[in-house]
Amino acid sequence: MCELLGMSANTPTDIRFSFAGLSQRGGRTGPHRDGWGIAFYERRGCRTFHDSAPSATSEIAKLVESHSVKSRTVIAHIRMATGTSKVCLENTHPFTRELWGRGWSFAHNGRLKGIKHWPLGVYRPIGTTDSEYAFCWLMGRLRRRFPEPPDKVQPLAEYLRRLCREIGKMGTFNMLLSDSRYLFCYCSTQLSWLTRRAPFGKARLIDREMTADFAELTTPRDIVTVIATQALTHDEPWRAMEPGELAVFRNGRRART
Amino acid sequence: MCELLGMSANTPTDIRFSFAGLSQRGGRTGPHRDGWGIAFYERRGCRTFHDSAPSATSEIAKLVESHSVKSRTVIAHIRMATGTSKVCLENTHPFTRELWGRGWSFAHNGRLKGIKHWPLGVYRPIGTTDSEYAFCWLMGRLRRRFPEPPDKVQPLAEYLRRLCREIGKMGTFNMLLSDSRYLFCYCSTQLSWLTRRAPFGKARLIDREMTADFAELTTPRDIVTVIATQALTHDEPWRAMEPGELAVFRNGRRART
Repeated sequence: MCELLGMSANTPTDIRFSFAGLSQRGGRTGPHRDGWGIAFYERRGCRTFHDSAPSATSEIAKLVESHSVKSRTVIAHIRMATGTSKVCLENTHPFTRELWGRGWSFAHNGRLKGIKHWPLGVYRPIGTTDSEYAFCWLMGRLRRRFPEPPDKVQPLAEYLRRLCREIGKMGTFNMLLSDSRYLFCYCSTQLSWLTRRAPFGKARLIDREMTADFAELTTPRDIVTVIATQALTHDEPWRAMEPGELAVFRNGRRART
Repeated sequence: MCELLGMSANTPTDIRFSFAGLSQRGGRTGPHRDGWGIAFYERRGCRTFHDSAPSATSEIAKLVESHSVKSRTVIAHIRMATGTSKVCLENTHPFTRELWGRGWSFAHNGRLKGIKHWPLGVYRPIGTTDSEYAFCWLMGRLRRRFPEPPDKVQPLAEYLRRLCREIGKMGTFNMLLSDSRYLFCYCSTQLSWLTRRAPFGKARLIDREMTADFAELTTPRDIVTVIATQALTHDEPWRAMEPGELAVFRNGRRART
């Protein structure tokens, strides 16, 4: 299994505090030592870092933690390999594909038995994970249903929820997906989120001794939502999603879907 | 215009010496200050770093220069924006797309007027450069001509040469393209390559005071080919490609095509 971390914000925001908590679960406070990855959107562009080394000791994870990369949409993942999928770069999330002239990123927590028998459309996996296979299937179906991007997010979210539930029948499918603007979060068993906005307070990481005072780091207008497999901080009102629920965020706010 | 750097080697090789030369042209010894990018393949996986800051001063370029990432296939690019394309992350090369379950990377030097009127297939650009547009057109045509990957590289290379010559009619099209195994290099006006193999000697960068003794860094079996817009070192036998020529490298050796 794996752990997920996502962020949606209305202003470019530094995710290092949350990532510092997550990365500890990659070999130190958690067993997710089989690689990790993070995708930071910058407008339509996307900057990704991947490594097949454990995030708790990875050189590249240290780089990510020591340099401020500000982004409005982020997807991160730490991996514990299951089944027969090798520990290697091409099997690390987030995976990316282009659809409608946007770069889509995807990360998954769970295991999907038998999904590799499903017929694919335009997209094919580069690695051997069930996760990337599910992503390719999902993107192929989205593309077939909407050859052009829908004007509004609601029909897209509705169809996506249907597809996610279909995939969820094959096992566990907690996932984060983004096209740079929207962050789509589907919960099959475990996913929690938290929105930080004014008045900002302090937060303390669960996985390592680290405290942030968001009042010092933000402006009163900032709205930042963080999504994670499990709560990353003490003393904040993390909300657990329901099984079968899809949540869509844009600019830090939950969209009506 | 821009500058290109590619590498094909039979063993994972550190490209930092060559990149250190190239990156100086991004704002110090050359005018290519509008971003840069590098793609390192690791098996079928690909690690990319992009930045819209000049490579000579970019924080991320410093990271790349200070950490050894060994790879058998690399594509790098420094950009000087032309025309109306903005300086931003989504406009920095190398661009990537998936075809036949492989991650393809592409970087281009030159300008292509009017290419954006050409009809695209499956792939669409995320940014606004003529380069990414040409890449999408190329990949769409490859996909249509070969719905499944050809067994041998020769028919692929032959078709690719035809497509490159067609694109080349729209302006200047020096490009590097890779699927992780093969490095395809097309010269429309300017591209040079050099193969290093035993007995290895020393090389001295043109763009900064730096010398490498490859005899110390390699084993006698290593074969490393470097491709660049212009020679990066003094005292080595760089070979200039002919206009209209496509060169294909795998494991450091030039393939017969």
